[in-house]
Amino acid sequence: MAKEIKNEIRAEVEQMVAAGRRAPHLTAVMVGDDPASNTYVRNKMRAAEYTKITSETLRLPTDISQDELISNISRLNKDDSVDGILIQLPIPPHISERAVCNAVAPEKDVDGFHVINVGRFCVDMKAMIPATPVGVIEMIKRTGVETFGKNAVVCGRSKNVGMPIAMLLHADGIGETEACDATTTICHRYTPPEQLRDFVKSADILVVATGIPKLITADMVKEGVAVFDVGITRIRDEKTGKFKLVGDVDFEGVSEKASYITPVPGGVGPMTVAMVIRNTLLAAKKQIQY
Amino acid sequence: MAKEIKNEIRAEVEQMVAAGRRAPHLTAVMVGDDPASNTYVRNKMRAAEYTKITSETLRLPTDISQDELISNISRLNKDDSVDGILIQLPIPPHISERAVCNAVAPEKDVDGFHVINVGRFCVDMKAMIPATPVGVIEMIKRTGVETFGKNAVVCGRSKNVGMPIAMLLHADGIGETEACDATTTICHRYTPPEQLRDFVKSADILVVATGIPKLITADMVKEGVAVFDVGITRIRDEKTGKFKLVGDVDFEGVSEKASYITPVPGGVGPMTVAMVIRNTLLAAKKQIQY
Repeated sequence: MAKEIKNEIRAEVEQMVAAGRRAPHLTAVMVGDDPASNTYVRNKMRAAEYTKITSETLRLPTDISQDELISNISRLNKDDSVDGILIQLPIPPHISERAVCNAVAPEKDVDGFHVINVGRFCVDMKAMIPATPVGVIEMIKRTGVETFGKNAVVCGRSKNVGMPIAMLLHADGIGETEACDATTTICHRYTPPEQLRDFVKSADILVVATGIPKLITADMVKEGVAVFDVGITRIRDEKTGKFKLVGDVDFEGVSEKASYITPVPGGVGPMTVAMVIRNTLLAAKKQIQY
Repeated sequence: MAKEIKNEIRAEVEQMVAAGRRAPHLTAVMVGDDPASNTYVRNKMRAAEYTKITSETLRLPTDISQDELISNISRLNKDDSVDGILIQLPIPPHISERAVCNAVAPEKDVDGFHVINVGRFCVDMKAMIPATPVGVIEMIKRTGVETFGKNAVVCGRSKNVGMPIAMLLHADGIGETEACDATTTICHRYTPPEQLRDFVKSADILVVATGIPKLITADMVKEGVAVFDVGITRIRDEKTGKFKLVGDVDFEGVSEKASYITPVPGGVGPMTVAMVIRNTLLAAKKQIQY
């Protein structure tokens, strides 16, 4: 599905270029040299290349000050040749993540983390919506999972994933965000285990974004549930001794009962990448009136 | 409780004035002459007077253009003698409510409807939070209703009431919004009746904001539930033929089982008024860094 979306984006970019416009341009900002961040940025840059969106990565030293980082962002905000800006998180702890997210011009904020984008989308106005949540919703829509009046359960309440997914699941299908009209429950670290079981059992749509490997097992879910596993944890395989990536859902067991389930790796991850690229195209088209 | 809060505000205003500062000032903007709006504005002005906050009401004609209304708001934004601005809703249909809410300077937006305030509070930053939601949370905190790890159910998903209440119920108690850490379910018009029953039955905290008189009856709730009734509908009493105000909850029946329940009228309404006034004081203190 991520490939399909990237092909659609590429077709649109080719049309833009054929019509004499320049291709959309994405600038990624990376502070320091975290290996996981390197991988994530590289994946996004590859997807940009595939879709014929031009891109560059601005690498800044770990010890850069907050002011210097923000002045770099301000320069990109003013640069008409840059359509989308993404700040690869995490950033070093001496810098306020919130200040940096709010320093990106809302119309170039392809991560959708600026408070203006959060506010707009929470009141159901067109906005840049964070890539992971919008990727989950896109999977729901494209696979035809029914959401209207269904029970959706979100495990995890992070501001970049759980919260926006809950917003998109419960809100109005005919609003600007084209949300899902599902009855929506937000579970989190303080939901007692027996309550978690009850709510998960009621779910027609289950989104799990907790970072707890195999939190959700087959006995907890309803037959026919649609499962979206956002978790990704690196663990050592006891048998082979090698490291591997696992999700928050016991895929083997749960897939026996689920009507639809995303694997880890290879599920939500590639969709997130595709959605960052789609947000870049959206930014280049300048269709949102800020 | 509303009275108690107004007394606290008054004490703080008196201190400010004793220290040589001017009293906070609230300007209400009313477009047209809706009788219900007149009542609401009058109640807020009375509460301002009680708390020694100075206030005025700017009355504008029903046929004012959107541009003219917004230029009036801009003038108030620039006026240093005005701390808080509230636009009494509804406004006439030829004017975009959203455009008007976003025209108020965020730091003077005592209704908390500006997208910057919505975004800030949804990512757990200090913000002006809409008066009704924050009033419900204040009642929860002051009465000592336990929320940590409890089940909260919100019926109604409006952007000014249901959505922000759900945000404050589920979010982190140690964040800037000092939210409630409850597992939170959002039910709405498309929740099937039998599902609504199941969720309401699971609720330790129940907030109802649907505008459907007596939607919630005694047989639907759990013994000991804390009930906050935001609904307010004017109906004709069949026995007396007179009009009266009713909530979304069958107070007589539900109060037999509830540990705590707000009446209509006289519950959420006066708290909302008190919270608008408290937001005005907050605006005057300029403690939020926008």
